[in-house]
Amino acid sequence: MSKLILHNYFRSSTSFRVRAALNLKCLDYQYVAYHLGKKQQRADAYLRLNPQGLVPALEISSKKVVTQSLAIIEYLDEVYPQVPLLPKAPLERARVRSIAMMVACDIHPLNNLRVLEHLRAEHGADDDAVASWFRHWATETFIAIETRLVCESETGQYCHGDSPSLADICLVAQVVNNKRFDIGLDPYPAIARIYDRCMSSAAFVAAMPANQPDTE
Amino acid sequence: MSKLILHNYFRSSTSFRVRAALNLKCLDYQYVAYHLGKKQQRADAYLRLNPQGLVPALEISSKKVVTQSLAIIEYLDEVYPQVPLLPKAPLERARVRSIAMMVACDIHPLNNLRVLEHLRAEHGADDDAVASWFRHWATETFIAIETRLVCESETGQYCHGDSPSLADICLVAQVVNNKRFDIGLDPYPAIARIYDRCMSSAAFVAAMPANQPDTE
Repeated sequence: MSKLILHNYFRSSTSFRVRAALNLKCLDYQYVAYHLGKKQQRADAYLRLNPQGLVPALEISSKKVVTQSLAIIEYLDEVYPQVPLLPKAPLERARVRSIAMMVACDIHPLNNLRVLEHLRAEHGADDDAVASWFRHWATETFIAIETRLVCESETGQYCHGDSPSLADICLVAQVVNNKRFDIGLDPYPAIARIYDRCMSSAAFVAAMPANQPDTE
Repeated sequence: MSKLILHNYFRSSTSFRVRAALNLKCLDYQYVAYHLGKKQQRADAYLRLNPQGLVPALEISSKKVVTQSLAIIEYLDEVYPQVPLLPKAPLERARVRSIAMMVACDIHPLNNLRVLEHLRAEHGADDDAVASWFRHWATETFIAIETRLVCESETGQYCHGDSPSLADICLVAQVVNNKRFDIGLDPYPAIARIYDRCMSSAAFVAAMPANQPDTE
């Protein structure tokens, strides 16, 4: 099997998710960086790999590419079942996916770089307005995630039980992202506890934006 | 097995997705409506079911609730495998999920009601600015979806092959949503063809916002 190639960017939260999944499964991969600030993900060669012009994309052979971070992680979990990132039972899988999607559908899409840039360019948002926008969506959903983690009996050392899952991957990536807008974890003790637990794992630490080949 | 209860709203695009999945699988369900304009999804009784205060939520027994439309549909596909909404092979599943997530992560979260209301209330957006915002995100990603559907050999009568999948469900729901902002399908012949194909199916028609108990 040819080596996996991850097209990504050190600071990208969705790239972080895939790096964490690859690391948790101990999968070796080639790291190819695209500087989003320089719009390298919009270059023709990359658009041929991913017409959406977004990172990450996982190249699994010279012709086959998987895009969208959650689709990539589900693919990895199906093809490399060691260190599963989803439980076995459908209802448990649904819980993990739903927590992951609270981040992946209700926080991150609103707060990623292209959206913040668009707010500035087209809607006259200044630094304060951009920060307020980011904090609004992150906070609204973090409150709901914290409530679920506290109230639902399936929560363990991680979001679901005592092993890391797709939910932890998305949650930790968002906690890291939040730091750029000074959103701390004091109001979210359950999230803080799970974040600390994940950060005690080399797989998560190696996925961090600070530890990539293209880190600035 | 107790009857499935779908907590939803006729106009909600994510609710449409789940209704289409339930219909495609010929699953009977009880319809419970929440008027988003009246903030009924923020009432205490519903927040106990779904602390996020968003629709849809699928109640599968008196205690168990699944939230997030894509997590619900994956759950339904695992528990009720008749009329599968994902292919069997991992790479094919990844393609279907990635197209679904282009809508579910990169269009819909930016364009749903709570975001448009927030743009008006907090960022002074008027009708024109809101419409421009909606069209920007819908168009950017529809161009990329159209490119994929045209260029990728897996495209068939539907987004993936000749049977409806999670990708078609998300795509059709977004096409319906786009109509509210006069975004037509002339620039997207592949999407238009697939939309027409889906609309020839009673399952999709019965899921349409116009055909629900709470339709206004």
